Amino acid sequence: MPDDDAYRRLAESVTGRPGFTMSIGTRVLDARRGEVRMMLERRTDLLQFNGNFHGGVIAGLADHAAGGAVSTLLMQERRIAVTVDLHVNYLSAANGEALVATAQAVHMGGTIGVAQVDIACVNEGREMLCAIATATMRAVQMPT
Amino acid sequence: MPDDDAYRRLAESVTGRPGFTMSIGTRVLDARRGEVRMMLERRTDLLQFNGNFHGGVIAGLADHAAGGAVSTLLMQERRIAVTVDLHVNYLSAANGEALVATAQAVHMGGTIGVAQVDIACVNEGREMLCAIATATMRAVQMPT
Amino acid sequence: MPDDDAYRRLAESVTGRPGFTMSIGTRVLDARRGEVRMMLERRTDLLQFNGNFHGGVIAGLADHAAGGAVSTLLMQERRIAVTVDLHVNYLSAANGEALVATAQAVHMGGTIGVAQVDIACVNEGREMLCAIATATMRAVQMPT
Amino acid sequence: MPDDDAYRRLAESVTGRPGFTMSIGTRVLDARRGEVRMMLERRTDLLQFNGNFHGGVIAGLADHAAGGAVSTLLMQERRIAVTVDLHVNYLSAANGEALVATAQAVHMGGTIGVAQVDIACVNEGREMLCAIATATMRAVQMPT
Repeated sequence: MPDDDAYRRLAESVTGRPGFTMSIGTRVLDARRGEVRMMLERRTDLLQFNGNFHGGVIAGLADHAAGGAVSTLLMQERRIAVTVDLHVNYLSAANGEALVATAQAVHMGGTIGVAQVDIACVNEGREMLCAIATATMRAVQMPT
Repeated sequence: MPDDDAYRRLAESVTGRPGFTMSIGTRVLDARRGEVRMMLERRTDLLQFNGNFHGGVIAGLADHAAGGAVSTLLMQERRIAVTVDLHVNYLSAANGEALVATAQAVHMGGTIGVAQVDIACVNEGREMLCAIATATMRAVQMPT
Repeated sequence: MPDDDAYRRLAESVTGRPGFTMSIGTRVLDARRGEVRMMLERRTDLLQFNGNFHGGVIAGLADHAAGGAVSTLLMQERRIAVTVDLHVNYLSAANGEALVATAQAVHMGGTIGVAQVDIACVNEGREMLCAIATATMRAVQMPT
Repeated sequence: MPDDDAYRRLAESVTGRPGFTMSIGTRVLDARRGEVRMMLERRTDLLQFNGNFHGGVIAGLADHAAGGAVSTLLMQERRIAVTVDLHVNYLSAANGEALVATAQAVHMGGTIGVAQVDIACVNEGREMLCAIATATMRAVQMPT
């Protein structure tokens, strides 16, 4: 079985490539089998008019963390997860210095995997839950 | 009742402010009572590793268009819509030169409104449905 | 290509078997390629405490109609659709003499299909939208 | 603050009335502030053609448990929760002797509450997760 470093490299293989995930500043905090934590620091271009993180940024971070969590279950078979659908509940104003998303795979069948994600806002070092998400993912062959 | 210009100004009052929506290049194509169309042009920083638009970008555009559509029903009372939850189904690879989201308000109660959104990819001028979304919104007082 | 009678027989092959769908009185109104309409008449055992149809009944009818709509696209390959996930928005009180669900398949990939469902309440013969739903389905071999 | 008996009576005040919830045999296992557990025993009229619990039954149980969990946070103000939207992920075949739904309120704002629900199938006394759900609820005045 791969070690945690391998899971982290998997998660970072996406955040480290040019594209949306990198451009918004996504960082991998932790990765282990079935669970991935990712972080995003506050920047003006990630906010809505009211100064809170934009719902699309929260959805993007949740989606990416969910994909990472499900992909850790698939990497040995050289498959990765792509999103089929995503459901996000916005619970409270997403303000603060950063967002932290913790995604856990709760199911992996032959093709379909499901992850739940808690998204916390960080205020003076304290995390407070500000959104939750559920993602349905589909396993596909890892691109070469 | 406000005219279509007023609805467009309402939708643009958000896209025209510094923040996520502006930074990804959101443009209002059309706005009328209960319906808003928005567009996003392809840029490297909006893509995933496979060259398609990222799911978070699609979710963000859908969210913003849904908020615009529901807000057109609220502006006379000086209220706007904020997102309670968002459900996005990714139907096919979101490639092409641009994304166009068409949001329609399907319900507005005393406080809760619901919008459905079709997100199309534009390839050589032809639109093809690549995602659908449903957003539950809540009416709040318009910030001054 | 099968004719509409074949689609109707497919949809009725489920409503006609002992189980939840039959026990709550589900009837197929129409079935054609990609679209199915089903109906349910008001009965005391389908209501909530406030006299409206229960959310679970609405979800069950939506689920069944969605499965029927996607299955019409699969029957020639002897596959049927099973539900991966279901999202229901309850828009207004589901009162009246009956519920009518109209499901349309909006996508069918290799394995995953998606249907949108409008659920209307019937009051003195007039239909009024009272809920919408989106179902993600997965194609499996038809049981023999 | 009310004691657990008061929460149980609140949850049972709905299951004990004629209607869908009672007719399918819903029983309250536990109720405390923010959390409710409900159970349903296997019966032919709750199944699909393949002998598993029907998706609508699972959705109905999840909805009812979620409503109960959020309502425990509202009862002191004489309000109860009604469902705005419901998202259910079906993870594996819902077979076995019974279903147990455990709902937890994860948020309660001024009007909107959110609950997460785990639905387990019971096989020879062992519970196995077979579905998860998220419900967005709205607080309304308790009917007299």
